[in-house]
Amino acid sequence: MKQTIITISREFGSGGHFIGEEVSKRLGIPFYDKNIIQQIAEKTGFSEDFVKEQSEYAPSKNMFAYAFVGRDHTGSSLSDRIYAAQTQVIRNLAEKGSCIIIGRCADYILKDRPDTYHIFVYGDEYEKISRTQQLFNLSEKDARAMNRDMDKKRRLHYEYYTDRKWGDPQNHCMCLNTSALDTERCIRYILDLFE
Amino acid sequence: MKQTIITISREFGSGGHFIGEEVSKRLGIPFYDKNIIQQIAEKTGFSEDFVKEQSEYAPSKNMFAYAFVGRDHTGSSLSDRIYAAQTQVIRNLAEKGSCIIIGRCADYILKDRPDTYHIFVYGDEYEKISRTQQLFNLSEKDARAMNRDMDKKRRLHYEYYTDRKWGDPQNHCMCLNTSALDTERCIRYILDLFE
Repeated sequence: MKQTIITISREFGSGGHFIGEEVSKRLGIPFYDKNIIQQIAEKTGFSEDFVKEQSEYAPSKNMFAYAFVGRDHTGSSLSDRIYAAQTQVIRNLAEKGSCIIIGRCADYILKDRPDTYHIFVYGDEYEKISRTQQLFNLSEKDARAMNRDMDKKRRLHYEYYTDRKWGDPQNHCMCLNTSALDTERCIRYILDLFE
Repeated sequence: MKQTIITISREFGSGGHFIGEEVSKRLGIPFYDKNIIQQIAEKTGFSEDFVKEQSEYAPSKNMFAYAFVGRDHTGSSLSDRIYAAQTQVIRNLAEKGSCIIIGRCADYILKDRPDTYHIFVYGDEYEKISRTQQLFNLSEKDARAMNRDMDKKRRLHYEYYTDRKWGDPQNHCMCLNTSALDTERCIRYILDLFE
Protein backbone atom coordinates (compact mmCIF):
# COMPACT_ATOMS: atom_id res chain seq x y z
CA MET A 1 0.00 0.00 0.00
CA LYS A 2 1.58 3.28 -1.05
CA GLN A 3 1.68 6.06 1.52
CA THR A 4 -1.64 7.93 1.52
CA ILE A 5 -2.76 10.62 3.90
CA ILE A 6 -6.43 11.48 4.21
CA THR A 7 -7.62 14.71 5.80
CA ILE A 8 -11.30 14.94 6.66
CA SER A 9 -13.02 18.26 7.27
CA ARG A 10 -16.61 17.81 8.35
CA GLU A 11 -19.80 19.53 9.35
CA PHE A 12 -20.83 18.83 12.93
CA GLY A 13 -23.27 15.91 13.03
CA SER A 14 -22.39 14.68 9.54
CA GLY A 15 -20.69 11.48 10.69
CA GLY A 16 -17.30 12.46 9.27
CA HIS A 17 -15.49 11.47 12.48
CA PHE A 18 -17.05 7.98 12.43
CA ILE A 19 -16.20 7.49 8.75
CA GLY A 20 -12.56 8.43 9.34
CA GLU A 21 -12.30 6.16 12.36
CA GLU A 22 -13.77 3.22 10.43
CA VAL A 23 -11.37 3.67 7.50
CA SER A 24 -8.45 3.79 9.94
CA LYS A 25 -9.61 0.58 11.71
CA ARG A 26 -10.14 -1.34 8.48
CA LEU A 27 -6.72 -0.38 7.11
CA GLY A 28 -4.88 -0.53 10.43
CA ILE A 29 -3.46 2.97 10.03
CA PRO A 30 -3.37 5.75 12.65
CA PHE A 31 -6.34 8.03 13.23
CA TYR A 32 -5.47 11.49 14.51
CA ASP A 33 -8.12 13.62 16.14
CA LYS A 34 -8.05 14.39 19.85
CA ASN A 35 -4.51 13.00 20.18
CA ILE A 36 -3.30 16.02 18.17
CA ILE A 37 -4.41 18.23 21.09
CA GLN A 38 -2.19 16.35 23.52
CA GLN A 39 0.83 16.84 21.31
CA ILE A 40 0.13 20.55 20.85
CA ALA A 41 -0.27 20.93 24.63
CA GLU A 42 3.10 19.26 25.17
CA LYS A 43 4.75 21.51 22.61
CA THR A 44 3.27 24.80 23.86
CA GLY A 45 2.91 24.18 27.59
CA PHE A 46 -0.79 25.17 27.49
CA SER A 47 -3.42 22.92 29.08
CA GLU A 48 -5.19 20.40 26.86
CA ASP A 49 -8.53 22.10 27.51
CA PHE A 50 -7.23 25.46 26.35
CA VAL A 51 -5.60 23.92 23.29
CA LYS A 52 -8.79 22.01 22.44
CA GLU A 53 -10.76 25.23 22.40
CA GLN A 54 -8.18 27.11 20.39
CA SER A 55 -7.09 24.47 17.87
CA GLU A 56 -10.44 24.05 16.24
CA TYR A 57 -13.23 25.70 18.18
CA ALA A 58 -11.83 29.11 18.95
CA PRO A 59 -15.01 30.66 20.45
CA SER A 60 -16.15 33.53 18.29
CA LYS A 61 -16.45 35.90 21.24
CA ASN A 62 -12.87 35.24 22.36
CA MET A 63 -11.12 34.40 19.16
CA PHE A 64 -10.25 37.88 18.06
CA ALA A 65 -9.29 38.87 21.57
CA TYR A 66 -6.87 35.93 21.74
CA ALA A 67 -5.72 36.71 18.24
CA PHE A 68 -4.76 40.29 19.01
CA VAL A 69 -3.77 40.34 22.67
CA GLY A 70 -1.20 38.40 24.66
CA ARG A 71 1.44 38.80 21.96
CA ASP A 72 4.97 37.83 22.96
CA HIS A 73 8.19 39.55 21.89
CA THR A 74 7.93 37.89 18.43
CA GLY A 75 4.48 39.44 17.88
CA SER A 76 2.66 36.08 18.15
CA SER A 77 -0.66 35.85 20.01
CA LEU A 78 -1.62 32.78 22.05
CA SER A 79 -3.77 31.59 19.15
CA ASP A 80 -0.90 32.07 16.71
CA ARG A 81 1.42 30.03 18.91
CA ILE A 82 -1.09 27.20 19.11
CA TYR A 83 -1.62 27.31 15.36
CA ALA A 84 2.14 27.21 14.76
CA ALA A 85 2.45 24.14 17.03
CA GLN A 86 -0.59 22.56 15.32
CA THR A 87 1.07 23.04 11.92
CA GLN A 88 4.27 21.40 13.14
CA VAL A 89 2.46 18.47 14.83
CA ILE A 90 0.33 17.76 11.73
CA ARG A 91 3.34 17.96 9.38
CA ASN A 92 5.28 15.55 11.60
CA LEU A 93 2.37 13.08 11.74
CA ALA A 94 2.10 13.11 7.94
CA GLU A 95 5.82 12.30 7.71
CA LYS A 96 5.27 9.08 9.67
CA GLY A 97 3.18 7.34 6.99
CA SER A 98 -0.41 6.66 5.91
CA CYS A 99 -3.00 8.04 8.31
CA ILE A 100 -6.34 9.79 8.72
CA ILE A 101 -6.37 13.32 10.17
CA ILE A 102 -9.60 14.97 11.27
CA GLY A 103 -10.18 18.74 11.09
CA ARG A 104 -7.73 21.29 12.47
CA CYS A 105 -6.94 22.91 9.10
CA ALA A 106 -4.99 19.77 8.10
CA ASP A 107 -6.17 20.11 4.49
CA TYR A 108 -4.55 23.55 4.33
CA ILE A 109 -1.46 22.61 6.35
CA LEU A 110 -0.75 19.62 4.05
CA LYS A 111 -1.94 21.23 0.81
CA ASP A 112 1.44 20.85 -0.91
CA ARG A 113 1.88 17.12 -0.24
CA PRO A 114 1.06 15.10 -3.39
CA ASP A 115 0.32 11.93 -1.37
CA THR A 116 -2.65 13.55 0.37
CA TYR A 117 -6.39 13.47 -0.34
CA HIS A 118 -8.58 16.15 1.24
CA ILE A 119 -12.21 15.21 1.84
CA PHE A 120 -15.15 17.29 3.01
CA VAL A 121 -18.02 15.43 4.70
CA TYR A 122 -21.37 17.17 5.05
CA GLY A 123 -25.03 16.31 5.38
CA ASP A 124 -28.61 17.46 5.33
CA GLU A 125 -29.87 19.57 8.24
CA TYR A 126 -32.44 17.06 9.45
CA GLU A 127 -30.05 14.10 9.61
CA LYS A 128 -27.26 16.09 11.24
CA ILE A 129 -29.60 17.31 13.97
CA SER A 130 -30.92 13.80 14.49
CA ARG A 131 -27.36 12.41 14.81
CA THR A 132 -26.42 15.10 17.36
CA GLN A 133 -29.61 14.42 19.33
CA GLN A 134 -28.73 10.75 19.63
CA LEU A 135 -25.04 11.26 20.39
CA PHE A 136 -25.54 13.92 23.07
CA ASN A 137 -29.06 13.07 24.23
CA LEU A 138 -30.41 16.53 23.34
CA SER A 139 -33.75 18.00 22.32
CA GLU A 140 -34.13 18.91 18.65
CA LYS A 141 -33.83 22.59 19.50
CA ASP A 142 -30.62 22.14 21.49
CA ALA A 143 -29.09 19.82 18.88
CA ARG A 144 -29.84 22.37 16.15
CA ALA A 145 -28.20 25.13 18.22
CA MET A 146 -25.18 22.93 18.97
CA ASN A 147 -24.64 22.03 15.29
CA ARG A 148 -24.89 25.65 14.26
CA ASP A 149 -22.56 26.85 16.99
CA MET A 150 -19.89 24.19 16.37
CA ASP A 151 -19.88 24.79 12.62
CA LYS A 152 -19.65 28.53 13.14
CA LYS A 153 -16.61 28.08 15.36
CA ARG A 154 -14.94 25.65 12.97
CA ARG A 155 -15.60 27.96 10.04
CA LEU A 156 -14.27 31.05 11.85
CA HIS A 157 -11.14 29.28 12.99
CA TYR A 158 -10.49 27.78 9.55
CA GLU A 159 -11.09 30.99 7.64
CA TYR A 160 -8.99 33.07 10.03
CA TYR A 161 -5.93 30.84 9.63
CA THR A 162 -6.21 29.77 6.01
CA ASP A 163 -7.84 32.68 4.16
CA ARG A 164 -9.97 30.07 2.44
CA LYS A 165 -13.69 29.41 2.43
CA TRP A 166 -14.53 26.47 4.71
CA GLY A 167 -16.04 23.56 2.75
CA ASP A 168 -15.12 24.97 -0.66
CA PRO A 169 -14.98 21.98 -3.08
CA GLN A 170 -11.97 23.56 -4.83
CA ASN A 171 -9.84 22.72 -1.80
CA HIS A 172 -10.95 19.09 -1.66
CA CYS A 173 -10.64 16.03 -3.87
CA MET A 174 -14.21 15.16 -3.03
CA CYS A 175 -17.18 16.25 -0.93
CA LEU A 176 -19.50 13.54 0.36
CA ASN A 177 -23.05 14.08 1.58
CA THR A 178 -23.69 11.38 4.18
CA SER A 179 -27.47 11.94 4.03
CA ALA A 180 -27.65 11.14 0.32
CA LEU A 181 -24.95 8.45 0.25
CA ASP A 182 -24.98 5.97 3.09
CA THR A 183 -22.08 5.95 5.55
CA GLU A 184 -20.82 2.55 4.36
CA ARG A 185 -20.58 3.87 0.80
CA CYS A 186 -18.55 6.90 1.98
CA ILE A 187 -16.17 4.50 3.77
CA ARG A 188 -15.87 2.42 0.57
CA TYR A 189 -15.03 5.51 -1.51
CA ILE A 190 -12.26 6.53 0.88
CA LEU A 191 -10.86 2.99 1.07
CA ASP A 192 -10.72 3.05 -2.74
CA LEU A 193 -8.18 5.91 -2.55
CA PHE A 194 -5.68 3.48 -1.04
CA GLU A 195 -5.87 1.09 -4.01
CA MET B 1 -30.93 -2.96 -10.92
CA LYS B 2 -33.29 -0.56 -9.17
CA GLN B 3 -34.22 2.61 -11.03
CA THR B 4 -31.54 5.23 -10.50
CA ILE B 5 -31.22 8.61 -12.15
CA ILE B 6 -27.94 10.46 -12.13
CA THR B 7 -27.71 14.16 -12.89
CA ILE B 8 -24.25 15.57 -13.56
CA SER B 9 -23.50 19.28 -13.33
CA ARG B 10 -19.94 20.05 -14.38
CA GLU B 11 -17.39 22.75 -14.83
CA PHE B 12 -16.31 23.20 -18.44
CA GLY B 13 -13.18 21.15 -19.15
CA SER B 14 -13.59 18.96 -16.05
CA GLY B 15 -14.40 15.77 -17.99
CA GLY B 16 -17.89 15.45 -16.49
CA HIS B 17 -19.48 14.79 -19.88
CA PHE B 18 -17.04 11.94 -20.60
CA ILE B 19 -17.62 10.40 -17.15
CA GLY B 20 -21.39 10.45 -17.61
CA GLU B 21 -21.12 8.96 -21.10
CA GLU B 22 -18.86 6.15 -19.86
CA VAL B 23 -21.21 5.25 -16.97
CA SER B 24 -24.11 5.15 -19.43
CA LYS B 25 -22.20 2.87 -21.85
CA ARG B 26 -21.08 0.46 -19.14
CA LEU B 27 -24.58 0.13 -17.69
CA GLY B 28 -26.40 0.26 -21.03
CA ILE B 29 -28.70 3.07 -19.87
CA PRO B 30 -29.63 6.26 -21.76
CA PHE B 31 -27.39 9.30 -21.71
CA TYR B 32 -29.19 12.59 -22.17
CA ASP B 33 -27.27 15.67 -23.17
CA LYS B 34 -27.63 17.23 -26.62
CA ASN B 35 -30.68 15.07 -27.38
CA ILE B 36 -32.59 17.10 -24.77
CA ILE B 37 -32.17 20.13 -27.05
CA GLN B 38 -33.88 18.36 -29.92
CA GLN B 39 -36.86 17.49 -27.75
CA ILE B 40 -37.16 21.05 -26.43
CA ALA B 41 -36.97 22.37 -30.00
CA GLU B 42 -39.80 20.04 -31.04
CA LYS B 43 -41.90 21.12 -28.08
CA THR B 44 -41.39 24.87 -28.49
CA GLY B 45 -40.99 25.25 -32.25
CA PHE B 46 -37.69 27.15 -31.79
CA SER B 47 -34.59 26.12 -33.75
CA GLU B 48 -32.14 23.70 -32.12
CA ASP B 49 -29.39 26.34 -32.24
CA PHE B 50 -31.52 28.86 -30.38
CA VAL B 51 -32.59 26.27 -27.81
CA LYS B 52 -28.99 25.14 -27.31
CA GLU B 53 -27.96 28.68 -26.49
CA GLN B 54 -30.90 29.28 -24.19
CA SER B 55 -31.16 25.96 -22.40
CA GLU B 56 -27.76 26.08 -20.79
CA TYR B 57 -25.58 28.80 -22.22
CA ALA B 58 -27.84 31.82 -22.18
CA PRO B 59 -25.23 34.43 -23.16
CA SER B 60 -24.83 36.93 -20.36
CA LYS B 61 -25.26 39.91 -22.67
CA ASN B 62 -28.56 38.58 -24.03
CA MET B 63 -29.91 36.58 -21.16
CA PHE B 64 -31.65 39.37 -19.35
CA ALA B 65 -32.96 40.84 -22.57
CA TYR B 66 -34.50 37.48 -23.47
CA ALA B 67 -35.72 37.09 -19.93
CA PHE B 68 -37.60 40.37 -19.88
CA VAL B 69 -38.73 41.00 -23.47
CA GLY B 70 -40.74 38.97 -25.94
CA ARG B 71 -43.30 38.03 -23.32
CA ASP B 72 -46.46 36.41 -24.65
CA HIS B 73 -50.00 36.89 -23.31
CA THR B 74 -49.18 34.61 -20.33
CA GLY B 75 -46.28 36.86 -19.33
CA SER B 76 -43.63 34.28 -20.29
CA SER B 77 -40.43 35.39 -22.05
CA LEU B 78 -38.74 33.24 -24.72
CA SER B 79 -36.29 32.02 -22.10
CA ASP B 80 -39.11 31.16 -19.72
CA ARG B 81 -40.87 29.12 -22.41
CA ILE B 82 -37.70 27.17 -23.17
CA TYR B 83 -37.12 26.57 -19.47
CA ALA B 84 -40.70 25.33 -19.05
CA ALA B 85 -40.24 22.90 -21.96
CA GLN B 86 -36.85 21.83 -20.56
CA THR B 87 -38.48 21.06 -17.21
CA GLN B 88 -41.15 18.96 -18.87
CA VAL B 89 -38.69 17.09 -21.13
CA ILE B 90 -36.37 16.28 -18.21
CA ARG B 91 -39.23 15.12 -15.98
CA ASN B 92 -40.53 12.85 -18.77
CA LEU B 93 -37.08 11.35 -19.37
CA ALA B 94 -36.72 10.59 -15.66
CA GLU B 95 -40.07 8.78 -15.77
CA LYS B 96 -38.73 6.35 -18.39
CA GLY B 97 -36.18 4.67 -16.11
CA SER B 98 -32.50 4.73 -15.09
CA CYS B 99 -30.46 7.29 -17.02
CA ILE B 100 -27.71 9.90 -16.91
CA ILE B 101 -28.68 13.55 -17.50
CA ILE B 102 -26.03 16.21 -18.09
CA GLY B 103 -26.48 19.83 -17.00
CA ARG B 104 -29.57 21.90 -17.85
CA CYS B 105 -30.65 22.42 -14.23
CA ALA B 106 -31.66 18.73 -14.06
CA ASP B 107 -30.51 18.53 -10.42
CA TYR B 108 -32.98 21.28 -9.52
CA ILE B 109 -35.77 20.05 -11.80
CA LEU B 110 -35.57 16.53 -10.28
CA LYS B 111 -34.76 17.60 -6.72
CA ASP B 112 -37.86 15.95 -5.24
CA ARG B 113 -37.31 12.49 -6.77
CA PRO B 114 -35.89 10.10 -4.16
CA ASP B 115 -34.38 7.78 -6.83
CA THR B 116 -32.02 10.49 -8.04
CA TYR B 117 -28.37 11.25 -7.25
CA HIS B 118 -27.03 14.71 -8.08
CA ILE B 119 -23.31 14.95 -8.77
CA PHE B 120 -21.06 17.94 -9.33
CA VAL B 121 -17.85 17.37 -11.30
CA TYR B 122 -15.10 19.96 -11.14
CA GLY B 123 -11.35 20.21 -11.54
CA ASP B 124 -8.21 22.24 -11.10
CA GLU B 125 -7.65 25.23 -13.41
CA TYR B 126 -4.53 23.84 -15.07
CA GLU B 127 -6.04 20.48 -15.99
CA LYS B 128 -9.31 21.97 -17.22
CA ILE B 129 -7.46 24.37 -19.51
CA SER B 130 -5.28 21.56 -20.79
CA ARG B 131 -8.34 19.39 -21.55
CA THR B 132 -10.05 22.24 -23.42
CA GLN B 133 -6.84 22.92 -25.40
CA GLN B 134 -6.72 19.31 -26.56
CA LEU B 135 -10.44 19.00 -27.31
CA PHE B 136 -10.74 22.23 -29.29
CA ASN B 137 -7.14 22.65 -30.49
CA LEU B 138 -6.76 26.03 -28.78
CA SER B 139 -3.90 28.07 -27.32
CA GLU B 140 -3.67 28.14 -23.52
CA LYS B 141 -4.96 31.72 -23.51
CA ASP B 142 -7.99 30.91 -25.67
CA ALA B 143 -8.78 27.73 -23.72
CA ARG B 144 -8.66 29.67 -20.45
CA ALA B 145 -11.04 32.29 -21.87
CA MET B 146 -13.37 29.61 -23.22
CA ASN B 147 -13.55 27.76 -19.86
CA ARG B 148 -14.24 30.98 -18.00
CA ASP B 149 -16.90 32.11 -20.47
CA MET B 150 -18.73 28.77 -20.57
CA ASP B 151 -18.78 28.44 -16.78
CA LYS B 152 -20.02 32.01 -16.43
CA LYS B 153 -22.91 31.30 -18.80
CA ARG B 154 -23.78 28.02 -17.09
CA ARG B 155 -23.68 29.68 -13.69
CA LEU B 156 -25.84 32.63 -14.77
CA HIS B 157 -28.43 30.40 -16.40
CA TYR B 158 -28.55 28.03 -13.41
CA GLU B 159 -28.75 30.75 -10.79
CA TYR B 160 -31.41 32.68 -12.71
CA TYR B 161 -33.75 29.69 -12.95
CA THR B 162 -33.08 27.92 -9.65
CA ASP B 163 -32.24 30.66 -7.13
CA ARG B 164 -29.44 28.38 -5.98
CA LYS B 165 -25.67 28.76 -6.01
CA TRP B 166 -24.16 26.77 -8.88
CA GLY B 167 -21.86 23.99 -7.61
CA ASP B 168 -23.00 24.28 -3.99
CA PRO B 169 -22.28 20.88 -2.33
CA GLN B 170 -25.56 21.16 -0.37
CA ASN B 171 -27.47 20.50 -3.59
CA HIS B 172 -25.44 17.43 -4.52
CA CYS B 173 -24.85 13.97 -3.08
CA MET B 174 -21.21 14.31 -3.98
CA CYS B 175 -18.70 16.60 -5.67
CA LEU B 176 -15.79 14.98 -7.48
CA ASN B 177 -12.55 16.72 -8.44
CA THR B 178 -11.28 14.98 -11.57
CA SER B 179 -7.81 16.47 -11.17
CA ALA B 180 -7.31 14.92 -7.73
CA LEU B 181 -9.19 11.65 -8.36
CA ASP B 182 -8.58 10.01 -11.71
CA THR B 183 -11.43 9.78 -14.20
CA GLU B 184 -11.69 6.00 -13.88
CA ARG B 185 -12.18 6.35 -10.12
CA CYS B 186 -14.99 8.89 -10.62
CA ILE B 187 -16.70 6.44 -13.01
CA ARG B 188 -16.31 3.68 -10.38
CA TYR B 189 -17.91 5.85 -7.67
CA ILE B 190 -20.91 6.63 -9.86
CA LEU B 191 -21.31 2.98 -10.90
CA ASP B 192 -21.36 2.13 -7.18
CA LEU B 193 -24.57 4.16 -6.79
CA PHE B 194 -26.36 1.56 -8.91
CA GLU B 195 -25.44 -1.31 -6.55
